[in-house]
Amino acid sequence: MSQVEISAGKFRGLRVLADRDGRFRMMAIDQRGSLRRMLSKVLGKDPDEVGYDDLRAVKKSVVKVLSPYSSATLTDPVYGYPGCLGYIPKDVGLLLAYEETGYTKAGEGGHERRSSLIEGWSARKAKRAGADAVKLLMYWRPEASDETLEHQSSIVRKVGEECEEVDLPFVLELVSYPLLKDELPEGTARPTTDTPAFAKRKPEIVLRTVQEFSKPEYKADLLKVEFPADLKYTEEYCHGTFDGKKRKALYDLDEVEDFCRRVDEACGVPWVILSAGVGIEEFLVNVELASEAGASGFLGGRAIWQGCTKFYPDVEAMEKWLATSGADNFKRLHEASRNAVPWYEHRRFGGYPNVSLAGGDREWYRNYEGL
Amino acid sequence: MSQVEISAGKFRGLRVLADRDGRFRMMAIDQRGSLRRMLSKVLGKDPDEVGYDDLRAVKKSVVKVLSPYSSATLTDPVYGYPGCLGYIPKDVGLLLAYEETGYTKAGEGGHERRSSLIEGWSARKAKRAGADAVKLLMYWRPEASDETLEHQSSIVRKVGEECEEVDLPFVLELVSYPLLKDELPEGTARPTTDTPAFAKRKPEIVLRTVQEFSKPEYKADLLKVEFPADLKYTEEYCHGTFDGKKRKALYDLDEVEDFCRRVDEACGVPWVILSAGVGIEEFLVNVELASEAGASGFLGGRAIWQGCTKFYPDVEAMEKWLATSGADNFKRLHEASRNAVPWYEHRRFGGYPNVSLAGGDREWYRNYEGL
Repeated sequence: MSQVEISAGKFRGLRVLADRDGRFRMMAIDQRGSLRRMLSKVLGKDPDEVGYDDLRAVKKSVVKVLSPYSSATLTDPVYGYPGCLGYIPKDVGLLLAYEETGYTKAGEGGHERRSSLIEGWSARKAKRAGADAVKLLMYWRPEASDETLEHQSSIVRKVGEECEEVDLPFVLELVSYPLLKDELPEGTARPTTDTPAFAKRKPEIVLRTVQEFSKPEYKADLLKVEFPADLKYTEEYCHGTFDGKKRKALYDLDEVEDFCRRVDEACGVPWVILSAGVGIEEFLVNVELASEAGASGFLGGRAIWQGCTKFYPDVEAMEKWLATSGADNFKRLHEASRNAVPWYEHRRFGGYPNVSLAGGDREWYRNYEGL
Repeated sequence: MSQVEISAGKFRGLRVLADRDGRFRMMAIDQRGSLRRMLSKVLGKDPDEVGYDDLRAVKKSVVKVLSPYSSATLTDPVYGYPGCLGYIPKDVGLLLAYEETGYTKAGEGGHERRSSLIEGWSARKAKRAGADAVKLLMYWRPEASDETLEHQSSIVRKVGEECEEVDLPFVLELVSYPLLKDELPEGTARPTTDTPAFAKRKPEIVLRTVQEFSKPEYKADLLKVEFPADLKYTEEYCHGTFDGKKRKALYDLDEVEDFCRRVDEACGVPWVILSAGVGIEEFLVNVELASEAGASGFLGGRAIWQGCTKFYPDVEAMEKWLATSGADNFKRLHEASRNAVPWYEHRRFGGYPNVSLAGGDREWYRNYEGL
């Protein structure tokens, strides 16, 4: 295989995000909308009544206690970074989110989701503030209208370009959602991904999505990917293993392993698996299966720390939970990702000796573009 | 003490440069001229005949073997970074030098030294390439002509501004040199700092220099300071302890400890001690005394690794020396710096809880300036 060139900032960034063994064990605490909803239940308030300080306090505790277990920690620049900066250890990489939380409804019936960026933020600011990567969450359904797809993909292209300009790794998170008629609830209920129709289509959705965003035009360096199936609908786990609820099986684990392999084959860049609010037991199986199929680790959020929120506003009780159950979750995830593929072993690179610095000759320092 | 504000990039950078305990154990392998001279002796060539690849090879071996022992590694963007990038571990900070090697002669008799920056390089490029700090070596004698002092200080101001613009810590290295008549050799011999006249003035030179560059206008975040005495001229070590050569004592260790304390009191920002080509035994005493007086650690170069160069071009023998004697030097330096003052304990900050993020309120992400 010929040498694969990578720029200095992207190389250093990827290296810092991963553990020394090249595997990503990353924690996400950039949740805003979903954390607000969790806290609103705990506090018995409307989500809108959950305050800035509430979000900031929970994020701070999670980072303080669990960031040391991660190879890198993802937070947001609004509620997270200002309060957490001092608690991210020197040897833990830092990712900052760029998307505004939530989405704007669009398309027929308002079921399509359109994203936007945090107003007043940029990849340039993230770089300046010391981030090792920019992360963008992108809602995507290949079946959405052309207008929505164009809206979404143009944001990805914009962020890809911004990251290239400041030479920062671009971590692109791809999240699907219920859209087609048979996936949606009757009336005004909140749509859920926990339907046979959505679970059945999940493998195909994830596959088509990673195919799209592996195109070089998006300039993504690492994909943060949903598990390409719903384990609660497998022969093996459909009897209520994870949540006590029985479901009808749609596929078995052999097929799921095959879905994972197909996703791996479609990924033009290294990828990690995301937790998307599933419980820790399910996420552990996700991480293990994805790692076996070629993923380079995980970027997990709620699956790791969500158990702490029930104690809020008792910060001490919350941190006690994080230091015991939360830390235990993390240690189990390290174990589950033991066979993950180091990022430089991904077929894009084909091994560490194969990764070479773009323009890495005698004139590198001259030719290396300014910001 | 009231809260001391620091910007996000500077904070994160300082944190990454130090060990988890806030102490700097940094290695310098950004030498160019001095390394060229060392290799020219080993190879029996003129310094000019020592090639790009020779410098690059030695730098690579030193980083490969010893960088993991450092809290951060300093290299240069010309010969060092392109070949070393892949060998700096994720948990080791990265500093890049900005000054051109050597100096231009100036002033009466051509004994003054004027610095320049690497053409085609910038703090902006360093930031983009993933550096956690910019380092600038500045030759300085308070007794030099106004023209030379203005030339030198204007470069410092320029780099201080560039670093502020990209929000990167500015590490300012201050190096004195023989200048006054009684410090200079007869004829055309290379001037040396190893004279009674220079050694006698050293405490005052270092003190006046750190006083100057502690002024806020220079925007330095960390000073890299010479030891404010020459231990070879102390009562205790003048009998050839370090190099077998006897000298007449100029001061004793009590006085030297006092010089160190005065330097510490004059430093408006945290400081580390540099090794300036002294041997490891002498540097260990320097580090211990400076740490006791308030330094935040060391940024050492030749004292740590220079023993390897005699094996060049036998890379294997060189790396064997580095992995044994070099690593041992580093471990002893860790021990010698055990009482160093964590950077956030320096009187500029007065403790970790006292360090607060500039603009760290709800609007931080908006107000934080772009690059």
